[in-house]
Amino acid sequence: MTEVSSNKMFGGWQKVFSHQSKELKCTMKFGIYLPPSANGGKVPVLYYLSGLTCTEQNFVTKAGAQKYASEHGIILVAPDTSPRGVNIEGEDDSYDFGSGAGFYVNATQDKWKNHYRMYSYITEELPALINEKFPTISDRQSITGHSMGGHGALICTLKNPGKYRSVSAFSPICNPMNCPWGEKAFTGYLGSDKTAWKEYDACELSKTYSGPQLNILIDQGKADNFLTQNQLLPESLVQVCSDKAIPISLRMQEDYDHSYFFIATFIEDHIKHHAKYLKA
Amino acid sequence: MTEVSSNKMFGGWQKVFSHQSKELKCTMKFGIYLPPSANGGKVPVLYYLSGLTCTEQNFVTKAGAQKYASEHGIILVAPDTSPRGVNIEGEDDSYDFGSGAGFYVNATQDKWKNHYRMYSYITEELPALINEKFPTISDRQSITGHSMGGHGALICTLKNPGKYRSVSAFSPICNPMNCPWGEKAFTGYLGSDKTAWKEYDACELSKTYSGPQLNILIDQGKADNFLTQNQLLPESLVQVCSDKAIPISLRMQEDYDHSYFFIATFIEDHIKHHAKYLKA
Repeated sequence: MTEVSSNKMFGGWQKVFSHQSKELKCTMKFGIYLPPSANGGKVPVLYYLSGLTCTEQNFVTKAGAQKYASEHGIILVAPDTSPRGVNIEGEDDSYDFGSGAGFYVNATQDKWKNHYRMYSYITEELPALINEKFPTISDRQSITGHSMGGHGALICTLKNPGKYRSVSAFSPICNPMNCPWGEKAFTGYLGSDKTAWKEYDACELSKTYSGPQLNILIDQGKADNFLTQNQLLPESLVQVCSDKAIPISLRMQEDYDHSYFFIATFIEDHIKHHAKYLKA
Repeated sequence: MTEVSSNKMFGGWQKVFSHQSKELKCTMKFGIYLPPSANGGKVPVLYYLSGLTCTEQNFVTKAGAQKYASEHGIILVAPDTSPRGVNIEGEDDSYDFGSGAGFYVNATQDKWKNHYRMYSYITEELPALINEKFPTISDRQSITGHSMGGHGALICTLKNPGKYRSVSAFSPICNPMNCPWGEKAFTGYLGSDKTAWKEYDACELSKTYSGPQLNILIDQGKADNFLTQNQLLPESLVQVCSDKAIPISLRMQEDYDHSYFFIATFIEDHIKHHAKYLKA
């Protein structure tokens, strides 16, 4: 693990590291914010999964989350969104598949399965590294994310009951099986048999979830183009959660769009939400 | 004037506009944050001048200032740092001269004087446009900035007693006549006669300032590489202000560097500082 950058911020340190990933078989970067309280002992950790086209930098530079992580004493980890530089033909051809678009699944298709294992990377390899190298309380972790990363946060939680103390999302892709982004990605990574897709779809996973009580917080901008294009489908998730009596708070925010201006506005609420469970 | 982008943020709107500048003879962009209270009437305005290499985007996306402008009811204006696309030979050759490095002076040298008039743009043309098009209280304006833009904020205030209600700066170039960045820029824009340089040097201007009482707030990171390279020289400004009994608060911040991570950490304090004077 190599330190790429280190900047003092809100009394703590915003750092970026690179490391060699065994799951992804390439060098990966992640951002980590260490609050002042991490100097004095172990603290909880919140993972943030970014959306299409992002690297670890978007959240680090644009969300303004470090202020609240500093105040609440939480480590923030922002991974990259896909393997990088693995030389698969076509990996850089489109913004919504391949590089920058790992979709937090383990690929099963020959062309992609050797490198595109973001699900195992996010849920196993990266937390093991973080817990080894930084002062985390390893059983106090939560997860959030944006768009494709909101999808990631939801499925990582639903597939691993009890692994995360809380989950939230900004404008998540709630039902990838039934939207163009998800159909393209799942066909490419998982093949055309839709049975396999259910393993990575928050709506499908909610139907069979049986673990500790979840209390899902979702913020969604009403002026988000991708909402009107039916890429996100939050109403489908709310329906399933309602049927299953999983508490979910979907806050539809007037005039807000899909950008980091939206995330910056509501990240304080999300970190408060996670702090409640991480520090309970 | 054309709207380039518009995003809801902290209850208000972060917008970017382009317009044709008469002073600079080119199309310029600026960012403007309109707080929720600007819907109900006129509000004060704070100008933020960016540093070397920046456009209007750096402050808009990285500083996290909108939250505090929303809370205090202040319009934030973030201009670009130089004329753009004016086709002067060599304008893009270096990061610290020409494009992205206007230094907030009116050039006098033949090659640059037709376009490089950032001083008049910032102090006259842009405020006139802002006051015409947006709900500002035109006599309640203040100014701040970072690095080259901190220099800009200081000289705009010192050269125009009473024009700005308050001034602050992050890691400003306090004495450009005596640092490599300033010597290069001033030689290029103003020629080799250093008498002309004094018109744009905060230390020199402080020596002869006689206007309303100023109360200058400066934050400076102790781990700022440019501080140790003697590009910033805040101690020179503190000395002059001390001699002239101009109140100045220079806060040396342990471990902080020259980045927007530093600005984001302390922007709340600066907006509070300006709100005190803008709303008095």
